[in-house]
Amino acid sequence: MVNEEVIRKHIAMAAEVVRQEKPLVGSITNAVSMNFVANAQLAVGGSAAMVYLAEEGVFLAQAAEALYVNMGTLLPVHEEALPAAVCAVCDAEKPWVLDPVGIGIGSLRERLLVQFKALKPNVIRGNASEIIALAGLWELEGGSVECRVHGVDTTDEVEAAESASVALARWTGGAVAVSGKVDLVTNGEVVAFSSGGSTFMEKVTGAGCSLGGVCAVYAAVVDPFTAALAATSIYNVAGFCAHQYTDAPASFQVAFLDELYKATATVIANNPLTIKEA
Amino acid sequence: MVNEEVIRKHIAMAAEVVRQEKPLVGSITNAVSMNFVANAQLAVGGSAAMVYLAEEGVFLAQAAEALYVNMGTLLPVHEEALPAAVCAVCDAEKPWVLDPVGIGIGSLRERLLVQFKALKPNVIRGNASEIIALAGLWELEGGSVECRVHGVDTTDEVEAAESASVALARWTGGAVAVSGKVDLVTNGEVVAFSSGGSTFMEKVTGAGCSLGGVCAVYAAVVDPFTAALAATSIYNVAGFCAHQYTDAPASFQVAFLDELYKATATVIANNPLTIKEA
Amino acid sequence: MVNEEVIRKHIAMAAEVVRQEKPLVGSITNAVSMNFVANAQLAVGGSAAMVYLAEEGVFLAQAAEALYVNMGTLLPVHEEALPAAVCAVCDAEKPWVLDPVGIGIGSLRERLLVQFKALKPNVIRGNASEIIALAGLWELEGGSVECRVHGVDTTDEVEAAESASVALARWTGGAVAVSGKVDLVTNGEVVAFSSGGSTFMEKVTGAGCSLGGVCAVYAAVVDPFTAALAATSIYNVAGFCAHQYTDAPASFQVAFLDELYKATATVIANNPLTIKEA
Repeated sequence: MVNEEVIRKHIAMAAEVVRQEKPLVGSITNAVSMNFVANAQLAVGGSAAMVYLAEEGVFLAQAAEALYVNMGTLLPVHEEALPAAVCAVCDAEKPWVLDPVGIGIGSLRERLLVQFKALKPNVIRGNASEIIALAGLWELEGGSVECRVHGVDTTDEVEAAESASVALARWTGGAVAVSGKVDLVTNGEVVAFSSGGSTFMEKVTGAGCSLGGVCAVYAAVVDPFTAALAATSIYNVAGFCAHQYTDAPASFQVAFLDELYKATATVIANNPLTIKEA
Repeated sequence: MVNEEVIRKHIAMAAEVVRQEKPLVGSITNAVSMNFVANAQLAVGGSAAMVYLAEEGVFLAQAAEALYVNMGTLLPVHEEALPAAVCAVCDAEKPWVLDPVGIGIGSLRERLLVQFKALKPNVIRGNASEIIALAGLWELEGGSVECRVHGVDTTDEVEAAESASVALARWTGGAVAVSGKVDLVTNGEVVAFSSGGSTFMEKVTGAGCSLGGVCAVYAAVVDPFTAALAATSIYNVAGFCAHQYTDAPASFQVAFLDELYKATATVIANNPLTIKEA
Repeated sequence: MVNEEVIRKHIAMAAEVVRQEKPLVGSITNAVSMNFVANAQLAVGGSAAMVYLAEEGVFLAQAAEALYVNMGTLLPVHEEALPAAVCAVCDAEKPWVLDPVGIGIGSLRERLLVQFKALKPNVIRGNASEIIALAGLWELEGGSVECRVHGVDTTDEVEAAESASVALARWTGGAVAVSGKVDLVTNGEVVAFSSGGSTFMEKVTGAGCSLGGVCAVYAAVVDPFTAALAATSIYNVAGFCAHQYTDAPASFQVAFLDELYKATATVIANNPLTIKEA
């Protein structure tokens, strides 16, 4: 049975605990949005450290409370660093978050993503096309190997990714967050739809990447489903608020980061949410 | 004969078509301004994807509508990736834009730029010193092998680069855009001067790089000369507008990106322009 | 004897000369904050160029007036590039600034930092934990090999790093700047405490990195102690001013960069300062 009240309490707790404990999250993430990811992680109350090298990813997997892996702007160093860091974080039994951005571009990305199937990310964050493509790559229900990603942009609606996201969550035993007009978050048993946000989000590069980074901050202190839902909720709250007093993407981005910083646990937990059985 | 009316119509068309079609542009660009480039491309209506690896550059050369190559912050991976991606985009008969930023720094940059002579970029975007240096490296009229670049800053006025830019455009058969107080755009036959902008532009790192990225967005839908002129015009419009209500570089940059997003085709096409035969 | 009047005159001179001469600073710095570093260097009046490759670092060590080395987000290329560039800048008898960010993460960073002991950076900039850790690594007084860095954040107060910073300054013959609530700057003989700034500084990623980059701009025109103190002072002035009219980190960052640009030599030189013998 789905208990919305309990879910909202968990979200509030995640928001509060992060602000109190300032968990350190290690990130191996792309060069386009690295700065945005770090500032978003700081804004919600976390602590951020970004690295490239395998040994440093391994170090952070051990020293930090969670790991964020974003597949954008791959370099040769990532071929060794990503699996090494992810294996280390799994060995340490700490949560890790995967953002399969750019899925469909190049063979290294595909080889790495194939490896990650067995390493079961605690949270997977992507747009609808990325989630469908990842389920396809992992040969799960609802997936498609036909690439429908437009560069890093989606060509599918969130609804189209529901079965893929449920299948991915069931496979990993964690949570999947799909970003779109209305966002979907599932743990394979429950599907939650979170609304709010802003149409400017898709005009700000790295909005999705930074959401993945914030998922990792929350995953450092709560279960994957609550973490993904808390991150999605604070993004919808901050995006909605920032949209009220800005009229273009760059001032929106500044306002959005400000609102991430200002959002209270109560407001985050009360963001519009619809919940159903998967 | 130069028909200003026709040129302005083409600029308006470029601005409109980009907002309708949201063309995907692949970029191999520098780490300093990668975020700014992507956000500028999104603001004018394009879609952005940034990569480092050769195979991914080749993929984007095929999957995207245009390629943007910026020479800043070279890594070892660029030695293979840049020629591979550029060859692929030429094979695919799609436009590519070159920003020779940092010309004069190091031998890898020089070797790559020498290779690019035969690959004839559809648009070349640089400041006056970079354009003169590139014409010098390619042994074209108006060029100089004596480096007069101050790091990434110009030491020459736009006027001094006129013959070099015309020679470069005649060599490539494309267009050259020179950034300065008044910007120069030429296709080797016509020289257009576009004014507006803001003195804050040189206080914002990556202003030139992002202009190159926006040239590529327009080059995806129109001819190189129109693309370079449309990009230069929207930069002058947005810079001029943003300057009216800001008094320092960081708030200017936010306002500038906002104005890129807001600029209408009509306003862009009506930006002050002087046109003459080359 | 410590002459506060003279120190303030030197700070004012540093601020003025940089705005007049626009010194070029080469930087090998991390991907998270590269954009922020460059914009901060431009805002105070300098000229910025960022590179990765050894040969380009060597070129800038010769062509620029100072070099900034920041240890964040190491790539394999840094193993060769950092020592090559630093040796070149020492050979050229130009100042260089070291920011040992991330000290304690990984063995490459440690090997490089060990090498830098003999190359005596003219300014070292870090938070308290980083300064204590560096003094420990270099086996100097006040240091500790026990890592107390929380990712890239400090766990120590500035006061705890006083003896380490004095020992480092005495070893290098240059200056050390320790960032915290009240900042400490020393040349091994005099210890200056500079106040102002904003609590938002620690919520903006790269605030410390960009301060290091600005130290290098000033070091291009004045002695290391004055440079470190001028940079620290302008950061405290700009941070304090920006804090007055912003209430969250992202709008603070924009306002802060604006204030770096606006700060006058007189205001910078008159920022609250306490000076004592070391």
